[in-house]
Amino acid sequence: MSFIFHSKVNMLGGKMRALLVLLVCSKVLAIATNDAYPSGYGDDRACGGTGDKLVPLRMEVYGNGRIFDITHRITPETCGGSEVGQIISLSLSMKNGSDYNFSIMKLPVHAGTHVDAPGHVFERYFDAGFDVDTLDLDVLNGPALLVDVPRDKNITAEVMKSLNIPRGVRRVLFRTLNTDRQLMWKKEFDTSYVGFMKDGAQWLVENTDIKLVGIDYLSVAAYADLIPAHLVFLEGREVILVEGLKLDDIQPGIYTVHCLPLRLLGAEGSPIRCILIK
Amino acid sequence: MSFIFHSKVNMLGGKMRALLVLLVCSKVLAIATNDAYPSGYGDDRACGGTGDKLVPLRMEVYGNGRIFDITHRITPETCGGSEVGQIISLSLSMKNGSDYNFSIMKLPVHAGTHVDAPGHVFERYFDAGFDVDTLDLDVLNGPALLVDVPRDKNITAEVMKSLNIPRGVRRVLFRTLNTDRQLMWKKEFDTSYVGFMKDGAQWLVENTDIKLVGIDYLSVAAYADLIPAHLVFLEGREVILVEGLKLDDIQPGIYTVHCLPLRLLGAEGSPIRCILIK
Repeated sequence: MSFIFHSKVNMLGGKMRALLVLLVCSKVLAIATNDAYPSGYGDDRACGGTGDKLVPLRMEVYGNGRIFDITHRITPETCGGSEVGQIISLSLSMKNGSDYNFSIMKLPVHAGTHVDAPGHVFERYFDAGFDVDTLDLDVLNGPALLVDVPRDKNITAEVMKSLNIPRGVRRVLFRTLNTDRQLMWKKEFDTSYVGFMKDGAQWLVENTDIKLVGIDYLSVAAYADLIPAHLVFLEGREVILVEGLKLDDIQPGIYTVHCLPLRLLGAEGSPIRCILIK
Repeated sequence: MSFIFHSKVNMLGGKMRALLVLLVCSKVLAIATNDAYPSGYGDDRACGGTGDKLVPLRMEVYGNGRIFDITHRITPETCGGSEVGQIISLSLSMKNGSDYNFSIMKLPVHAGTHVDAPGHVFERYFDAGFDVDTLDLDVLNGPALLVDVPRDKNITAEVMKSLNIPRGVRRVLFRTLNTDRQLMWKKEFDTSYVGFMKDGAQWLVENTDIKLVGIDYLSVAAYADLIPAHLVFLEGREVILVEGLKLDDIQPGIYTVHCLPLRLLGAEGSPIRCILIK
């Protein structure tokens, strides 16, 4: 249920001033589990839901192996999230007499598993309204290939060529060293992640039919080619970039992917939920 | 791409005080279009994307009729959204010298098309952690029935019985008078919407296999039975409630539904993207 409510808060006055800083925070989340199913965030994967104890079951695989959740959970430790304050805050609480609990969420649209729209790096596209609501759901939903890429380099043109991805493949999720290193499970942003170099992006755009590019860290582009590779991918407004995917413990191969961003008017990105169906 | 940034804003100090008020705002969005495809929000469905003019195409149906978007767009006019301030605010802007645009989103988790988790109306479930991250993706993804319900009453036990929904059907989207009245296209909250009465909810839980209940306004429960009907649905923690669906112009029948909420730890609801695939 959802209701209008009038919040007597001091609204954020004026324009936000923000600085790009690379925080070095403590590594608090990169604890692998020993379960057969994909990694969790360590200690919160209780095995419950039955009996008297009220313990929620947090799963990574659903429907007896039918559905794989390839989305990272958004927590207070989510990289970048806490920089805007509390991500989830209870506005109306049953403890304070409300008939229901009612929370507000606040989050950078590029935190956690998310999608980039063309307005992210092109001012003219931003001004024209190429936001996440203009992304093609036909690209975000359909057959997808999960591939492992070489672990010793960024994704260059040479690497792209070596992957031999056939023409006709429209959606590819690239699993890299970032997954092995569990970078997405860390609170700090780590600039040593791997990703596309500009020439790799260029090769993909010119020589494949790939329109959905998924990757396992917060940027598809290697730090050395951060903006140039994004520009190559997004200039044609046909390629959709999904970043921060959770690809741990999933076999390479063909799946049906469903990636559904929020329908946020004016936003150049959106947190997203992505699943694979076998 | 996504980066840590340090925002020098005045954080919202202290606890939010919020009052449940039913705003009566002007009707600004309920403008129907004449297109063959589902209704848009009136004047912003430009037919562009090609040629020199940079005009984004905002669609309701994708992939030549394969995918129907049954999610309402989140705009500054979204019912309840603007009550927490600006929904999307640009934190880093290319106009101010940044290499990229970077926005913050702020929104009640029950605004627009959204999902309720058991913690929404049960304090013990909230405390135990039954948040949106614990919802079963196997329920949220699979075959679904879209049905029209009688337009002259709420969804009572009698109405539920009359629908003759066969055993085995796990996901039902109920289209009501709310769609005809275009209530979701309005900015104001309208308490005259229709929804489940407590006995209708009870009948569904006891006599059907339905685990996903979708409806076309901001509450599955009629205003007269607001809390009681929610309690009946959510007590067993097996039924998932998706509210605020956009079911305009879609034929009744069987589809595959994909409803993907964000993976928000601790949130008793989440904005959601829902699609139907024919």
